[in-house]
Amino acid sequence: VDGVGERRLNRDVPREPEMRSSPEFDLIAAIRERLRRSESGSHLVGIGDDAAVTVPDGATATSIDALVDGVHFRSEWCPPAAAGHKALATALSDLAAMGARPGEAYVWIGCPEELDEAAILAVAEGLSDCAARTGVSVLGGDLTRAPALALAVTVVGHAATPEELVGRQGARPGDAVCLTGQLGAAAAGLLLLEGADPPGSLADDDRAALIERQLRPMPRLAEGLALARAGAGAMIDLSDGLGADAEQLASASGVEIEIEVDRVPLGAGVEALAGALGSDPHELALGGEDYELLCALPAGRVAAASKALSGFGCGLAEIGRVASGSGVRIRRDDGRLLAALGHDQLYR
Amino acid sequence: VDGVGERRLNRDVPREPEMRSSPEFDLIAAIRERLRRSESGSHLVGIGDDAAVTVPDGATATSIDALVDGVHFRSEWCPPAAAGHKALATALSDLAAMGARPGEAYVWIGCPEELDEAAILAVAEGLSDCAARTGVSVLGGDLTRAPALALAVTVVGHAATPEELVGRQGARPGDAVCLTGQLGAAAAGLLLLEGADPPGSLADDDRAALIERQLRPMPRLAEGLALARAGAGAMIDLSDGLGADAEQLASASGVEIEIEVDRVPLGAGVEALAGALGSDPHELALGGEDYELLCALPAGRVAAASKALSGFGCGLAEIGRVASGSGVRIRRDDGRLLAALGHDQLYR
Repeated sequence: VDGVGERRLNRDVPREPEMRSSPEFDLIAAIRERLRRSESGSHLVGIGDDAAVTVPDGATATSIDALVDGVHFRSEWCPPAAAGHKALATALSDLAAMGARPGEAYVWIGCPEELDEAAILAVAEGLSDCAARTGVSVLGGDLTRAPALALAVTVVGHAATPEELVGRQGARPGDAVCLTGQLGAAAAGLLLLEGADPPGSLADDDRAALIERQLRPMPRLAEGLALARAGAGAMIDLSDGLGADAEQLASASGVEIEIEVDRVPLGAGVEALAGALGSDPHELALGGEDYELLCALPAGRVAAASKALSGFGCGLAEIGRVASGSGVRIRRDDGRLLAALGHDQLYR
Repeated sequence: VDGVGERRLNRDVPREPEMRSSPEFDLIAAIRERLRRSESGSHLVGIGDDAAVTVPDGATATSIDALVDGVHFRSEWCPPAAAGHKALATALSDLAAMGARPGEAYVWIGCPEELDEAAILAVAEGLSDCAARTGVSVLGGDLTRAPALALAVTVVGHAATPEELVGRQGARPGDAVCLTGQLGAAAAGLLLLEGADPPGSLADDDRAALIERQLRPMPRLAEGLALARAGAGAMIDLSDGLGADAEQLASASGVEIEIEVDRVPLGAGVEALAGALGSDPHELALGGEDYELLCALPAGRVAAASKALSGFGCGLAEIGRVASGSGVRIRRDDGRLLAALGHDQLYR
């Protein structure tokens, strides 16, 4: 069975049966054991067969996302457990933006040779913790070599009918543009992790919270479901940044979105950090990775939506409105245009 | 909108809205256009929203698989289109082994900076071609930077009921162990691609076919469905190699599998190449990546299964049997033991 095997590429983290009693085989078993903890009863076959078997009831929403060392994070400042958590959390954020109930996840972990077993297990722990906190079952996995730590996560969410799910296409002129939570903390946390160190400007608690927000975002799953029920016509999660993601919504719905950036709530410590760095805190707010939800709500439904979200301890801010036209305009409260996106024909 | 953006990690292959008219934006649009070609009518929302929406009927089988440059293939000998094809084909092979009808695929493509647009489009073409040939809809995608070309593919298959799907656990003592097609060609193709060049030993056609088998395997989807209907109690696709994969089946079913390796059909040219290299052709047959199906069939059902497969131009060879015990024994026809797997307690 060897011979040819020696000439084959180094495909998988070693797990051949002849290594059954080796640490590598124990590693796979240990990962499975951690991920099985998160399995609920909604499936028939989970990790360990060619495929996982489920019997979905109604409509499913499915999305794939990836997280790569050196691209989306750096292992110098992102512990392996945080990488595992964040890979699942950011994938689930797309389900939140559909108003779907989270169901199952399927995960590929690419491991560089220098990553030791404890680190790989920590990645699995991070995945498992996030799955447990969100009620997700990790039903499938693949572990192979890769040049850098990388995770690709497919998530499946559910709804009774497809009509219950919220796409990006239903924003209508006159709708209010609403935002969950606060922005800027993830970008601020990234600055801190990448070495920004303004002396004495941040309370220790705020500093820790900003970093945690960058490392361990939580998808707004309950909030997305509530906004869907409250009548949101279009919804997106803020991964790339408020401007870029609003432009996706505007483009899909065939409308213009106007945002008053001074109405965007900022995370604790964001203003202090921006001040110490001599930059505009609203630039941090546009920086992305906050994984808050942006939605278009008929004006008459904002109050009810806001009340529903307060039940989860989450604020809902009305930060702009939908108009006829195309693209996104972001204004300061003095009317000055901070940014315009998707207006190539006007602004080039 | 810049400023902070400049400090952010280089996350995605550029596609910000301000680049709408840039080649990079055109690239995303071109990839979407290629993948949309493969979409069938079974879904409500495909590529372009936060998640794809489907309304599955019955049971689903879901699996994730990855292909990484330098690990599973080398870009020196694997054209980008072949990488795209193979990533989807090998993922679908897991659905074949469940006896599931292929349905949808969700793909992450990680692109190194040095990969030019034509190469990225070729990856998408390869995915799209394989999807079209197998009747699969690519409904979701993610394109980001990565240190090397990498693809992670989640595939979803369907069956009317979960009972129609075939796992690994139902092999019973007395069952026949049956194999679709022929083995060895993929390992032989890999040897050729990696530089083995025995003078004059191979016909040009055989040489090309061996390489094609390594680069563009086709999942045995129709055959898997037919074997499930013919009563296969357990089934697995041969990715890691006959011995290793048979051991997975034996272990999941709690049985021993005995294989007579001289009954394994070899691909055209496999014997000639092995002869020229002075090696045993059956080592190539155990080398993996043939993506044939190995299944356990009640002895009385082999003839009917064989007849069903002949309708697809695919042979079915009875290569061994299931016995009480554990592990896998692979024997030559003189009774000599070639390999034993999963017999730690006996052979260590």
